[in-house]
Amino acid sequence: RIMRPDDANIAGNVHGGTILKMIEEAGAIISTRHCNSQAGEPCVAALARVERTDFLSPMCIGEVANVSAEITYTSRHSVEVQVNVMSENILTGAKKVTNKATLWYVPLSLKNVNKVVEVPPIQYARKEQEDEGKKRYEEQKLDRLETKQRNGDVILPVINPEPHTVGYSQSSLIHLVGPSDCTLLGFVHGGVTMKLMDEVAGIVAARHCKTNIVTASVDAINFHEKIKKGCVITVSGRMTFTSNKSMEIEVFVDADPFVDEPRERYRAVSAFFTYVSLSKEGKPLPVPQLLTETEDEKRRFEEGKGRYLQTKAKRQAQLQQSAQ
Amino acid sequence: RIMRPDDANIAGNVHGGTILKMIEEAGAIISTRHCNSQAGEPCVAALARVERTDFLSPMCIGEVANVSAEITYTSRHSVEVQVNVMSENILTGAKKVTNKATLWYVPLSLKNVNKVVEVPPIQYARKEQEDEGKKRYEEQKLDRLETKQRNGDVILPVINPEPHTVGYSQSSLIHLVGPSDCTLLGFVHGGVTMKLMDEVAGIVAARHCKTNIVTASVDAINFHEKIKKGCVITVSGRMTFTSNKSMEIEVFVDADPFVDEPRERYRAVSAFFTYVSLSKEGKPLPVPQLLTETEDEKRRFEEGKGRYLQTKAKRQAQLQQSAQ
Amino acid sequence: RIMRPDDANIAGNVHGGTILKMIEEAGAIISTRHCNSQAGEPCVAALARVERTDFLSPMCIGEVANVSAEITYTSRHSVEVQVNVMSENILTGAKKVTNKATLWYVPLSLKNVNKVVEVPPIQYARKEQEDEGKKRYEEQKLDRLETKQRNGDVILPVINPEPHTVGYSQSSLIHLVGPSDCTLLGFVHGGVTMKLMDEVAGIVAARHCKTNIVTASVDAINFHEKIKKGCVITVSGRMTFTSNKSMEIEVFVDADPFVDEPRERYRAVSAFFTYVSLSKEGKPLPVPQLLTETEDEKRRFEEGKGRYLQTKAKRQAQLQQSAQ
Repeated sequence: RIMRPDDANIAGNVHGGTILKMIEEAGAIISTRHCNSQAGEPCVAALARVERTDFLSPMCIGEVANVSAEITYTSRHSVEVQVNVMSENILTGAKKVTNKATLWYVPLSLKNVNKVVEVPPIQYARKEQEDEGKKRYEEQKLDRLETKQRNGDVILPVINPEPHTVGYSQSSLIHLVGPSDCTLLGFVHGGVTMKLMDEVAGIVAARHCKTNIVTASVDAINFHEKIKKGCVITVSGRMTFTSNKSMEIEVFVDADPFVDEPRERYRAVSAFFTYVSLSKEGKPLPVPQLLTETEDEKRRFEEGKGRYLQTKAKRQAQLQQSAQ
Repeated sequence: RIMRPDDANIAGNVHGGTILKMIEEAGAIISTRHCNSQAGEPCVAALARVERTDFLSPMCIGEVANVSAEITYTSRHSVEVQVNVMSENILTGAKKVTNKATLWYVPLSLKNVNKVVEVPPIQYARKEQEDEGKKRYEEQKLDRLETKQRNGDVILPVINPEPHTVGYSQSSLIHLVGPSDCTLLGFVHGGVTMKLMDEVAGIVAARHCKTNIVTASVDAINFHEKIKKGCVITVSGRMTFTSNKSMEIEVFVDADPFVDEPRERYRAVSAFFTYVSLSKEGKPLPVPQLLTETEDEKRRFEEGKGRYLQTKAKRQAQLQQSAQ
Repeated sequence: RIMRPDDANIAGNVHGGTILKMIEEAGAIISTRHCNSQAGEPCVAALARVERTDFLSPMCIGEVANVSAEITYTSRHSVEVQVNVMSENILTGAKKVTNKATLWYVPLSLKNVNKVVEVPPIQYARKEQEDEGKKRYEEQKLDRLETKQRNGDVILPVINPEPHTVGYSQSSLIHLVGPSDCTLLGFVHGGVTMKLMDEVAGIVAARHCKTNIVTASVDAINFHEKIKKGCVITVSGRMTFTSNKSMEIEVFVDADPFVDEPRERYRAVSAFFTYVSLSKEGKPLPVPQLLTETEDEKRRFEEGKGRYLQTKAKRQAQLQQSAQ
């Protein structure tokens, strides 16, 4: 679809959250279609995880987004989908790859939302494809357990914070889940959640460096718990790490089923977003260093640095590989 | 994309206007892309006309709309696009054709919005295709002149109207044109206008028969005049004709460029929508007869009857042809 | 327009904020049109104030909202608009008055947003109408000064609050101002702000009583400061008073022009919203009493009680008057 002014920030760049939402919708369609392709229990595919996603080049107002999706692996109870997004300038015809994302879906029965339905297996062109898919499947399973552990953390409010401290830029928004946010099962679309997460992370980044900012990448996101229609969700973000030219922001999503439900508030999702600051000409700008105060903040900064260096090393390894 | 609760009426059927908007967006993308495919002046395709469109089967919440578009004819200054819409139930895999629409676009220069740019010719597989396209082109040109003439009419308010009279169900809405409604040129997307027209026509139909109603067809719509960002548009509708099971509603769109413009309010579009009334099981219901009071109302009723009988005859001719 | 599922809460009642937004749009259109009716500087009417508004009866999904607006008074630099909203059930034909609102607009020059343009005077049918309008004009002018004074207050976060305390239900959201939120001048529509305020107030009310809640009334709202495109706005609400069957919530709007602007965060609007709690059958429910802890909370509770008793007395006086 054509990118509208509403999809973009003041500088005309489309919000990463809008792109994540389109990616997730494409993934949900193709995996729901696949899981219902054999006579069996009708089901709806729910997003369980999005692998790390890089935003390779910005998309602008007026460009057309071309989204294509393909199923690349199926386990007994999950579907791996690869989604590619291309931006197309229909005036010049120029096309650029903006995203390559990998998503994992789990089919839930339409009659009983707590029941996971079996996934029809796909055919692989080569045996290696199946083996590589299985490897990816095992890896993401491990990683999901890990994030589940660090999920207890909360963002506490800070009174009168100093500029460039963690408390200075931390932000949160609340959103009442409406019918348009939900799937047929009455649960929030993963894409809607990711869009809100990107919105909060973007505000944290802009508050920190007071310039035009864009999403550079999103670390793997795990959707541990479904969020039901009528919930209030609180999306909070705090900065964890800055390098010379990038900022890492941790985002939490908490659901509060406060009407008509006997449940307490619970953590539904958490993730790391990386942003860069851009000049008016679209050049990366230096980022003010994050001032850490507490022990926890210093620990998180070091962890963020670890992730940053790891990603950098991986990218260089890939570049060398592709140069050979 | 997946149809959401917002796209549908209370009975769960997607509004005809939502479908018209998707059709127009697909047409605008493919024709803008084509008109910029050769080195020349950058331009944006503006909707000039939509041919008569039938809604063959209803689309429901949760279904996926598949929209495909193809350029079928080019004249020197216009592009004919054929758009097909299929609804797909991704749970059952069932697919149905819901619409086949033909749209005419005119490329306007990005630098000078009053200049029409030349259209690169397309290649035809067979010579007859070009000849048939040319015939369609000539026909629509004639028809556009005709509607321009009947454009002066206004809908006056009626105090305390009797049930089932014209004044009883006539309705209007106003809308302030915002940035998301507009193309790169700052003019309202044809699809946005059609969505508002369908909304008003639907209210007129529901007020008349007080049941669940759905769009059955839209007569050819001509876009005589562009509508600029910042205008207030008034969309008004009145019933012109009822058969046993259908209602014809005439809709006018007037634009009011009241800020920053020396222009008077003007008629931008007009069209006829046909609605049917459905029972809770989706069966067509009889429609209360429209009570005409004035000479004008009686005349419009007869004209509507003419269009109704003509369409009926055409459809029967097609059925006989395809049965042979 | 027809009320859609997204306009309503889980019980099907349309959000007060959606209605306030429609009211403001109608007021902005009629006053902008009036202020541009004579040859002079092109201008856009900006909302300066909304008088106290009662929600007389709820509006539901599927109903049609009829909004009508009339200019009732003009001073040299401001326009008073009376807007009436009727809900119409198009299936039964039943109509009910849902709102009567009075709004004040100020015309700002399109070329220089800091310049207030002169308003063309209207003709009054009777001299008394002009005198009464002038009286209303003077009254609101006084009241605007008063609210300006109490504007410094902030809502501080509370850690681990007890149920039914002020800290327990207080809530805030942030919103990045996009192009669709803004007028031609690039400033946020008053209606957009009111919708966000109602959203926060509704969440505060629902958190307090954990039932279905609806807006009963909104006290006069003054728009002291414009909010520009690209700002982040923080909307925060806290409960100030509860009677047996109603809750009063104070809402603050702060604007943070954090990109590209040398300005500090500032208070743009503040207002009191009153909510009632409804059973599934739509009957008013008793509200848990608000537990006040600090001196400030106790003082605000007493002030809220004062407003509550004053409004109650006024309403009874009106009832007696209309009974005579």
